[in-house]
Amino acid sequence: MKRAISLSAGNGGEESNELISKLFYKHFKNDILVKSEDAAVLEIAAHNIAMSTDSFTVTPLFFPGGDIGKLAICGTCNDLAMMGAKPKFLTVGFIIEEGFDIRELEKIVRSMKKELALNAAMIVGGDTKVMPRGTIDKLIINTTGIGEIEYKGISANRISEDDLILVSRDVGAHGATIFTAREGIALDSSLESDCNSLYPTVEALIEADIEISALRDATRGGIAAVLNEWAKQSDICIELEEDAIPISQEVFGVCEMLGFEATMLANEGTFCLAIKSEDANRALSILKKFNKSAAIIGKVSDSYKQRVILNSSYGTKRFLDMPTGELLPRIC
Amino acid sequence: MKRAISLSAGNGGEESNELISKLFYKHFKNDILVKSEDAAVLEIAAHNIAMSTDSFTVTPLFFPGGDIGKLAICGTCNDLAMMGAKPKFLTVGFIIEEGFDIRELEKIVRSMKKELALNAAMIVGGDTKVMPRGTIDKLIINTTGIGEIEYKGISANRISEDDLILVSRDVGAHGATIFTAREGIALDSSLESDCNSLYPTVEALIEADIEISALRDATRGGIAAVLNEWAKQSDICIELEEDAIPISQEVFGVCEMLGFEATMLANEGTFCLAIKSEDANRALSILKKFNKSAAIIGKVSDSYKQRVILNSSYGTKRFLDMPTGELLPRIC
Repeated sequence: MKRAISLSAGNGGEESNELISKLFYKHFKNDILVKSEDAAVLEIAAHNIAMSTDSFTVTPLFFPGGDIGKLAICGTCNDLAMMGAKPKFLTVGFIIEEGFDIRELEKIVRSMKKELALNAAMIVGGDTKVMPRGTIDKLIINTTGIGEIEYKGISANRISEDDLILVSRDVGAHGATIFTAREGIALDSSLESDCNSLYPTVEALIEADIEISALRDATRGGIAAVLNEWAKQSDICIELEEDAIPISQEVFGVCEMLGFEATMLANEGTFCLAIKSEDANRALSILKKFNKSAAIIGKVSDSYKQRVILNSSYGTKRFLDMPTGELLPRIC
Repeated sequence: MKRAISLSAGNGGEESNELISKLFYKHFKNDILVKSEDAAVLEIAAHNIAMSTDSFTVTPLFFPGGDIGKLAICGTCNDLAMMGAKPKFLTVGFIIEEGFDIRELEKIVRSMKKELALNAAMIVGGDTKVMPRGTIDKLIINTTGIGEIEYKGISANRISEDDLILVSRDVGAHGATIFTAREGIALDSSLESDCNSLYPTVEALIEADIEISALRDATRGGIAAVLNEWAKQSDICIELEEDAIPISQEVFGVCEMLGFEATMLANEGTFCLAIKSEDANRALSILKKFNKSAAIIGKVSDSYKQRVILNSSYGTKRFLDMPTGELLPRIC
């Protein structure tokens, strides 16, 4: 096989078949995929399934803690997990710039394979397009997944004053990592993206019979976006204890230096939870098994409906607003 | 709403929400989509479903007979139809260049809506990414769909000498249209893309109890690619009568002028069929209800296994090979 992707690798003819068999099938191979023709044929046991899609445009393609391939699997599997669904079948669309290095593509495909295994999910179909040099910057990956719903009724609409708000780990690592990687800011630190698969954590919560109201991974817009959406959709006020929000020293450093709010930075393996108060401590101890920085960060009240409030340790209050503007394009 | 897509429309915050509610939800609205959060929750009656994905990079975005939106719905719904599945639920991923005209985007979304209705399918989830100016050429759309399998066992592996080979209409219209549109070749003709939804035709074949061995829409690589794949996968020889292959005058003209073979030009609403001989004439009369140019174009033999032969009216024979090289990037 050549070392660089040629336009003819996207023509539907022999060169496409070579790329598919020697690269994609080699790593993604499974019984369904090899039998797949125009579409994959799937057997579904559950009546209730979840379906989600995401396109990944992150730059740089490789960053501390992950790469676009890992991100593309985590992103879609996490969206399914957040609806209480076990990720099962994924499709993948590669859109590649002519000339892209095939060894880099293989590295990305290997990360995808590794992350699929962690989710016990598989690729059942795909599509490859090659675009002429200069019409796309390197590589975009779309993944779409379906999963079987194991826990029904999770929704941003059903949060009430009986719930406490938790976060699964320290916030903002992905955003801070991509920003510093892209801007060439050399930090003498172990800062890396939180990019990670969340289904194993969700599965542990479900198996422990935790009563879950809502789950949401805090991607673009960070936990600020998630919690503001929750406040609106459930017509509630969310009150956070500012000091309880876990922020790593590394992320704190980037925020201090650049004037960001960690709550508005993107995450790729960090989720918010609304859990019935009586189960919150049990949920917290499960979360801590996956990441020690998990925390209960707030509660639900009716003081300012549809708003999120930050209570500081000095007794002051301020609103945490929905992020606006674009902090950093191509973060995911 | 602004007239051009800004980077902040892809940030996951307020501007994204505005684009989603004022443009995408407005046209795609349905009960599942409005309730969809991180993933859509679907009820599936069938145990057997088909799943397929495709990304669309066509340029120009608008062409005679369609646009990228129509193409994105037809493409994925047709892949499902080719497996005997009724298209049901689709996700859509938009990847948009900063500055893209919102009125153009709305035109594209309207075409998608219209084509979804023809398939009785719906959009249940989506994702929007905005990339900085110059990092992507205008717009890419990914669609992924699932459908319920109505007719089981359709496969490129099960074609035998009991089958005849049919094509649903004249070939090569999409390829010829995109080529002339892009190269600015002004033809005084009614040439337009065949871009079209195929499920209604497949449904009519199923309802008439036609025994179907294989179906495949002849996209990139044209009918030459489909028939070569079939010959290989079923370990058969396909013998075509060259004069029986329907080619419109307009496509014939483009091929004469530019030296193309119509059998290698892409189609977006034309499919090949392998049908049991005793049902072939009945299948043909059903196909003709949808397009008068449908034809029986060949048979299966064992003369040159894994090859496709073109028999001319002069009694000569030649191989029709798998297309190689890249005739025209960004055709779909």
